[in-house]
Amino acid sequence: MKELKAGVTAAKGFQAAGLRAGIKAGKDNKDMAILYSEVPAVCAGTFTKNIVKAAPVLWDQEVVTQSGKAQAVIINSGIANACTGTKGYANCRKEAEIISSLLGMPREQVLVCSTGVIGVQLDMTVIQSGIENLVQAKAATAESANDVAEAILTTDTHKKEYAVECEIDGKKVVVGGMCKGSGMIHPNMGTMLAFVTSDVAIEQPLLQSILKEEIADSFNMISVDGDTSTNDTCLILCNGMAGNATLTDESEGLTTFRAALREVLIYLAKQIAGDGEGCTRLFEVTCHGASSKEEAKIISKSVVCSSLTKAAVFGKDANWGRILCAMGYSGAQFDPEKVDIILESDKGTVAIVKDGIATDYSEEYATEVLSGNPVKAILDVHAGEATATAWGCDLTYEYVKINADYRS
Amino acid sequence: MKELKAGVTAAKGFQAAGLRAGIKAGKDNKDMAILYSEVPAVCAGTFTKNIVKAAPVLWDQEVVTQSGKAQAVIINSGIANACTGTKGYANCRKEAEIISSLLGMPREQVLVCSTGVIGVQLDMTVIQSGIENLVQAKAATAESANDVAEAILTTDTHKKEYAVECEIDGKKVVVGGMCKGSGMIHPNMGTMLAFVTSDVAIEQPLLQSILKEEIADSFNMISVDGDTSTNDTCLILCNGMAGNATLTDESEGLTTFRAALREVLIYLAKQIAGDGEGCTRLFEVTCHGASSKEEAKIISKSVVCSSLTKAAVFGKDANWGRILCAMGYSGAQFDPEKVDIILESDKGTVAIVKDGIATDYSEEYATEVLSGNPVKAILDVHAGEATATAWGCDLTYEYVKINADYRS
Repeated sequence: MKELKAGVTAAKGFQAAGLRAGIKAGKDNKDMAILYSEVPAVCAGTFTKNIVKAAPVLWDQEVVTQSGKAQAVIINSGIANACTGTKGYANCRKEAEIISSLLGMPREQVLVCSTGVIGVQLDMTVIQSGIENLVQAKAATAESANDVAEAILTTDTHKKEYAVECEIDGKKVVVGGMCKGSGMIHPNMGTMLAFVTSDVAIEQPLLQSILKEEIADSFNMISVDGDTSTNDTCLILCNGMAGNATLTDESEGLTTFRAALREVLIYLAKQIAGDGEGCTRLFEVTCHGASSKEEAKIISKSVVCSSLTKAAVFGKDANWGRILCAMGYSGAQFDPEKVDIILESDKGTVAIVKDGIATDYSEEYATEVLSGNPVKAILDVHAGEATATAWGCDLTYEYVKINADYRS
Repeated sequence: MKELKAGVTAAKGFQAAGLRAGIKAGKDNKDMAILYSEVPAVCAGTFTKNIVKAAPVLWDQEVVTQSGKAQAVIINSGIANACTGTKGYANCRKEAEIISSLLGMPREQVLVCSTGVIGVQLDMTVIQSGIENLVQAKAATAESANDVAEAILTTDTHKKEYAVECEIDGKKVVVGGMCKGSGMIHPNMGTMLAFVTSDVAIEQPLLQSILKEEIADSFNMISVDGDTSTNDTCLILCNGMAGNATLTDESEGLTTFRAALREVLIYLAKQIAGDGEGCTRLFEVTCHGASSKEEAKIISKSVVCSSLTKAAVFGKDANWGRILCAMGYSGAQFDPEKVDIILESDKGTVAIVKDGIATDYSEEYATEVLSGNPVKAILDVHAGEATATAWGCDLTYEYVKINADYRS
């Protein structure tokens, strides 16, 4: 798979723009973005399972399930438009209508996303002029992809984008994406916001089912703080401009496209976990030898979510008791006396537990290993053949600082 | 209900001692304790649901289910005797045997508890001499109850004990208790360690079923960090020395005893939540108007466990969006647009959400309310009549500090 420079504008026929409209504090902060496909694209989406859903989530669910097509996505950061009642939803529809009239497409083909503070209404005067400027500015350049990736950030410390190229039917197919998210990250669907574009030709129902399956192994396997957001959204737009024969269930090229999509999704998901609020290191937990994939996921996610384990990673403390404890309360079934645990990073590898008991490892060397990045915990429960990986980060003073004082 | 001074020695016929054996670091730290009933007592217990169970948990489960009687409890802090394999279990049995031979009771009537670092074996020479000294020192005084309550602590900042007196059949009945716990607190049974003694006469199976029910509304409704320990144990010993007619299902006095037991359990559970590692305030969340008790529990516990909400309490930030978000991902069913939220403390009361939308409250006043202790969030989902309360604490820099560096 060949890696490309641009993110969401890497695929043919996609344009983007990101700029400051004036929603966020700080006069240099970009806070609005547009994504545009030159032709209508089939779209699919996965959304938060939180029953408190932001207005844009409700809007986008309708677009995806009813039209299954989209040509533009309008995004703002700074305000989440969540817990904003009927007025919030009306504002959301109004955004789609403004795009619709400016770019000449049905409002049912405009997706809308918001991220930021919960419970505050959008200022529609600011939004209206922001949209007008975005429509003027949109372009198919790598710079515009960068601008969009920047404009969607909140407490993130850096942009998150990625794109790969593959070949299907002798045609060059590109899959690119971007995402944002740093706190309130425990996706039960997409994460706060993720966007993938591709020029592949593919049937819409197939795209939706593939996206759902791949999300389960990527964004749904990360956690920063255990809090599932009200705005989690992952959208994919495929405009068919690569010129391949439309992918169906039967297509040979489907495996290639899925591999490209998976690579992009996992890359982006890891970017979010590794940029978790206040974190210093990405923490990757792989469970081998589980009796089913579901059990492997439950175990790896339980460890990656354990506050005590996360604090131990921050402290470079090879506290394997906490790892075993988190495996034990996960709800998965295994024999604690058959568990092996290995810690690994760019600084080395250390087997710390064999058959549920500490090995004779050196604490000093284990601390050295834990000072690397990413920190990996490799678990084997010797109960079967299934494997899964989850991603998170360490728990730091900075996380507390950020969240004790986010709104002010 | 009359509150008494002593804890576990308040009830007739109970003796205790706590002293330093030399397990913990720090030459003044008490680390071993004994609880002794002058006559065999019926006992009941609830234990961690973590499948990684410490050796003493396995031992005590056998005592409770097989003999249902106990006359002594031997406790150490500093080492949890968890993840210690067959040697750990043998050491546990050995402790019971030492007590058994010194005090002349079957080893099956000796309960054993440990708390502290996971994965380290007990030094049985230290344990043996500790037990010998405890057996000499045990007494039925308030001072000895204080010593025991101190000897069982780990990262706790203060002792936790309580006792009440009630009347059954014209007899004075006392229920007293103590507990410890500060981190790895998300009990799915008892909490790390809790002990209740009473002189009431009661049938053992009834005692077990009452304990289980009351634990569900007390210790199982607290959380410090979401990590369910390997050692959670709550034990109750009732020696019948109050002289009441043995309580059965039918007894009138049962309601009184349950009320006394509940008062002691909830008091102790709140003490643990309010002394959560690094915390500055107790956080109490009550959910009213739920469609069932189970739903009310799920909602209140989800809020009390939310890292973001806990950090907001620390920051005195009335971030109701995080509360609503945590309610939303709890898994309970309710209409977000019917939710009311009130914040309350000794500094005042403020209604911040009505029908799912922010009221026109003063942020300044809300911050004032949040500076009180305990901080209470009172939720109403207007879906039914059920109510439940959960207890936790705020998330602070100090929590991270303690847990980034616990073992060293």
